[in-house]
Amino acid sequence: MNFVSDNAFGVAPEILAALSRANEDTAPSYGEDDLTARVQARLCDVFEREVAAFPVVTGTAANALALATICPPYGAIFCHEESHIVVDECAAPEFFSGGARLVQLKGNHGKITPATVSAALPLYRRGVHGVQPAAISITQATELGTAYTPSEISALGELAHREGMALHMDGARFASALVHLRCTPAELTWKCGVDVLSFGATKNGALCAEAVIFFNRDLVRDFELRRKRGGHLLSKMRFISAQLDAYLADDLWLHNARRANELAQQMANVLSPIRDVRIDIPVETNAVFANVSVTFAAHLRDKGAVFYDWTEPANGRVVIRLVLSCLTPEDAVSQFLSVAAESA
Amino acid sequence: MNFVSDNAFGVAPEILAALSRANEDTAPSYGEDDLTARVQARLCDVFEREVAAFPVVTGTAANALALATICPPYGAIFCHEESHIVVDECAAPEFFSGGARLVQLKGNHGKITPATVSAALPLYRRGVHGVQPAAISITQATELGTAYTPSEISALGELAHREGMALHMDGARFASALVHLRCTPAELTWKCGVDVLSFGATKNGALCAEAVIFFNRDLVRDFELRRKRGGHLLSKMRFISAQLDAYLADDLWLHNARRANELAQQMANVLSPIRDVRIDIPVETNAVFANVSVTFAAHLRDKGAVFYDWTEPANGRVVIRLVLSCLTPEDAVSQFLSVAAESA
Amino acid sequence: MNFVSDNAFGVAPEILAALSRANEDTAPSYGEDDLTARVQARLCDVFEREVAAFPVVTGTAANALALATICPPYGAIFCHEESHIVVDECAAPEFFSGGARLVQLKGNHGKITPATVSAALPLYRRGVHGVQPAAISITQATELGTAYTPSEISALGELAHREGMALHMDGARFASALVHLRCTPAELTWKCGVDVLSFGATKNGALCAEAVIFFNRDLVRDFELRRKRGGHLLSKMRFISAQLDAYLADDLWLHNARRANELAQQMANVLSPIRDVRIDIPVETNAVFANVSVTFAAHLRDKGAVFYDWTEPANGRVVIRLVLSCLTPEDAVSQFLSVAAESA
Amino acid sequence: MNFVSDNAFGVAPEILAALSRANEDTAPSYGEDDLTARVQARLCDVFEREVAAFPVVTGTAANALALATICPPYGAIFCHEESHIVVDECAAPEFFSGGARLVQLKGNHGKITPATVSAALPLYRRGVHGVQPAAISITQATELGTAYTPSEISALGELAHREGMALHMDGARFASALVHLRCTPAELTWKCGVDVLSFGATKNGALCAEAVIFFNRDLVRDFELRRKRGGHLLSKMRFISAQLDAYLADDLWLHNARRANELAQQMANVLSPIRDVRIDIPVETNAVFANVSVTFAAHLRDKGAVFYDWTEPANGRVVIRLVLSCLTPEDAVSQFLSVAAESA
Repeated sequence: MNFVSDNAFGVAPEILAALSRANEDTAPSYGEDDLTARVQARLCDVFEREVAAFPVVTGTAANALALATICPPYGAIFCHEESHIVVDECAAPEFFSGGARLVQLKGNHGKITPATVSAALPLYRRGVHGVQPAAISITQATELGTAYTPSEISALGELAHREGMALHMDGARFASALVHLRCTPAELTWKCGVDVLSFGATKNGALCAEAVIFFNRDLVRDFELRRKRGGHLLSKMRFISAQLDAYLADDLWLHNARRANELAQQMANVLSPIRDVRIDIPVETNAVFANVSVTFAAHLRDKGAVFYDWTEPANGRVVIRLVLSCLTPEDAVSQFLSVAAESA
Repeated sequence: MNFVSDNAFGVAPEILAALSRANEDTAPSYGEDDLTARVQARLCDVFEREVAAFPVVTGTAANALALATICPPYGAIFCHEESHIVVDECAAPEFFSGGARLVQLKGNHGKITPATVSAALPLYRRGVHGVQPAAISITQATELGTAYTPSEISALGELAHREGMALHMDGARFASALVHLRCTPAELTWKCGVDVLSFGATKNGALCAEAVIFFNRDLVRDFELRRKRGGHLLSKMRFISAQLDAYLADDLWLHNARRANELAQQMANVLSPIRDVRIDIPVETNAVFANVSVTFAAHLRDKGAVFYDWTEPANGRVVIRLVLSCLTPEDAVSQFLSVAAESA
Repeated sequence: MNFVSDNAFGVAPEILAALSRANEDTAPSYGEDDLTARVQARLCDVFEREVAAFPVVTGTAANALALATICPPYGAIFCHEESHIVVDECAAPEFFSGGARLVQLKGNHGKITPATVSAALPLYRRGVHGVQPAAISITQATELGTAYTPSEISALGELAHREGMALHMDGARFASALVHLRCTPAELTWKCGVDVLSFGATKNGALCAEAVIFFNRDLVRDFELRRKRGGHLLSKMRFISAQLDAYLADDLWLHNARRANELAQQMANVLSPIRDVRIDIPVETNAVFANVSVTFAAHLRDKGAVFYDWTEPANGRVVIRLVLSCLTPEDAVSQFLSVAAESA
Repeated sequence: MNFVSDNAFGVAPEILAALSRANEDTAPSYGEDDLTARVQARLCDVFEREVAAFPVVTGTAANALALATICPPYGAIFCHEESHIVVDECAAPEFFSGGARLVQLKGNHGKITPATVSAALPLYRRGVHGVQPAAISITQATELGTAYTPSEISALGELAHREGMALHMDGARFASALVHLRCTPAELTWKCGVDVLSFGATKNGALCAEAVIFFNRDLVRDFELRRKRGGHLLSKMRFISAQLDAYLADDLWLHNARRANELAQQMANVLSPIRDVRIDIPVETNAVFANVSVTFAAHLRDKGAVFYDWTEPANGRVVIRLVLSCLTPEDAVSQFLSVAAESA
């Protein structure tokens, strides 16, 4: 009963099979291979426009390289205070950018709004003394499993562009948000102003594969040099591309995300009515944040469930995080729900 | 009637004279000269212990070099959200440290407390995913002209050391705080846990002279290499040291600070009773922050007073900042107070 | 007939199989898994001592992270002017270290010697004005396919340590050098003074797997934080470790390297006697550098051989590089040798 | 008898006087003052075109900031292996640029040529694997006291621009070269292709004043932000500008340089005929490099002369460096020459 993270699971069988297929014959190295070209073509199809896509192996690399490309060393990046780039990347954006500043904003359900960004901006419009507004970065889905709607994103995109900034989306769980919102990839990105996307696959069934996607070729600038000197240009790149290729083929990515979201929904439906459980954060993607008694949480663990406390316990209560993967076995969920029911 | 900044004024006559005196004969360059040695000796006397002191030409350089020496590229520096290192140095600490993070904390009257630092800490105790707590940085006097008391500093020093961090003090206006608190330099620094001090002189009558002072030789580490490669090791260093030498001689620094503080007090005393004026921030050093009507502020400016608005105007009111220097002419103050009185 | 690079080939079947095996069940992420622990244990066995080993996905990452850990931002790294870190990593060492200097030395057959390092040193012993000697970095096997003998390495190790520097070995092709020299891994590394090794597997049959190996735990310092913030801590790390595990199991790495070296030797033996061919660089590992006429090279290409020119053509001659992999098919070699024979 | 460096001397009286004059009244800080504007205007006059000039306090800051502005983090800067940026700035260019590479070239008399740059270029034209050619940097006068002629510079400028690079001139001793060459400042800079100049004054009589001069406004880019975050935007900037203002007024800079050059010439004339002395490097500016016997050098020192050995002693001979300043007293020179004559 592992609900710790979508990282705890392995690789979707279709993606593993693709690695074997990619292993026939020789191929040009460093991304000059046919599979990498095919991924690029697939992404143009998926996003219904010419895009420039670059595979990398981690979400941190995708975010930090994307941000360093659009933000100068003396730039400011406006983002949520609980976002992955702030909390979980050991200052990778600062490192890759050469010292840029993450301006950390508050916001409900893991989201920032044009109002909070606008309120923060004047401090960064005072000439050479301060850092210069360069980018807004949002996480889709958010760290709290919620999803920005296209209209929420549009509002941020308009603000960003009006103020001379670029809009970055950390899409480590992009597929989960997409299937929740029932819109097209285009509608959720460039059509609402996203300039560059960290397109995640690892959490949704890949081994180690993400892509940085620029929706405007002009923004690519020196990305490829930055990737190389970050040690992120793999010699046998075709095996990263093979993962992305299989991920996109036959809508595997959407099926996987739908599966994980459904499991989360199923859990929320069963947990919600339990008297000891309070679900304050809407369950929109593949995670359930449940406010439970410390006793309840301990009981679940006694019975073999594994998960994180999201908050420090206080007044006998704690928020626990339950993450579902497309690879979470059906019976792990049903077993968990039985345990939860009897713990109530 | 210039109250814009203590930077608007020039150089104290004693310090200017010292430059001429330093200009006799040749001297070793790059800080190997006698004057630099004498400043070092004087600072040992002033602080009643062996210190390691290094002259630089700006407060930004002093702060950024001091912080980069005590904080690794993946470190976190806890500080007030309105501090100079956050707001006025264009990410110099991030640049010099190689990408460290400034953790911006709230706090009344420009001060942070052990409680707010402690509350922020747990987020940075999660292994390699987050930045690592490395330093607390406080500003003395604060950006709001208030002064941390020795016991307030001690509490932060204890927390810092208990948590394996160093305590840095940005003392761009150290002298002003010192004379206000009527304690010794030692009592206000290493005796309450300060590890490294940016000792400012420029705002208090020097031309361009600050010193980074380490109270523990072990903390100096690679400071000198960092200063050199930051372009901050002056070839004719003796002329920076000459300023500091004159600054410390005959307690000039204390006289100057006392003078500026007294002028501020004088202004506060006259302004306070005026009905349109509200002084919410205690006037402890050389600045007066006055909440006035927009009309009142406009009237002062019409009559020739020059100063900054500290806040955006709201509901017809604005907080203005009036900074006094040891070089502010007596009659500028009295003229301003007359104008203020008649504007009431 | 692909002799372009060992990167052009795919993954050894044993390593591909290991990925499938690693895909059973869930596992802790970010390297906390059992496979990663097993690789660590295996490497302790292989190197006959306690080592600290950290998997990464590229040789550039391994080198840059290793060097940044042992070299400060103002440090100097002495290395061969044709080494990979100089020529092929887009200044990754400078980036990861925060601006260190690669001191580029000349040397026959891709090797540097204590004499050339010693001659370069005095320039870096002039106080704060220059960068500070921090490391020597050697490539094993070299870019020219030659191998440093243990005694050559010992001499560099002694010099490094006498001068307060660390010795780094870029072992992208470590296995090839090892089997050529017929010594133990220990004899080729820490026993002759190597402090940290970039242990390559990718060029020798892995998909994307290298390990940074410290032979002294004290040198690890902040490596793990640097790896994380470089975006090189993979969430599903077990799949990188699985590659290394299979690579080390049953001496696969040695068999693979032996195979590639033998193919190279086979090619050299047949090419050498050809009148138009001159082999000036000893063929010690898995590459043949052959000085041939431009006509001869063109003829080989016409017949389907793919390889790089190592030098610019001059006076009708050019040095071509032929790289052999453990995965190079037997018949590609025999076909090439027939073509060569008939071209003569 | 101090011939150690032009840094050993103090400040020209005209420049010291200018500091006093600048100390009247208040002034806007951070370079918004009238004196800074006047320096800008004077430099436009001196260089006979619109220029963008920015005062800083050290040559290292001038060079590193100028280079970081024209060279990306993954860029290559072609320069002489003995240049100040290579040897004397503790990797400041690498630091400010975020990790760029100095490509160190050999060359007679401290000069590089289009031929050596061209020969080095192909290595940096291999796609993302290598650093990208970004700038050529030359020193005028060179570290060996020689001066590039306008035609030598033109040739480098043409190469730079043809190859998409910028041409930087480290003019720490620009005035000395200029008066030697008897051309105009324009002829020695932008007219022969120089894009940005580190215009030195400190070595020629200022206290601490250099200016970064861009001959094309488009190249200024983000220089001002880089200067600020480097801690090099002085609050009381007018006192740096006052030095430059006095330096340029009434051709003081040219008079000073002429004076120093004449003293050097005078020394060379007397030393040359001495049998024990060999002057291999043409004495073109304010330094004499004399190849003398170790005994001769020791004798000079016994008699009170102070100077550097430029080389390690070998075979009983050593090259000594004698630097002359505009402030070197006449009698120090004549006394030295007497001593030298009697030592012969």
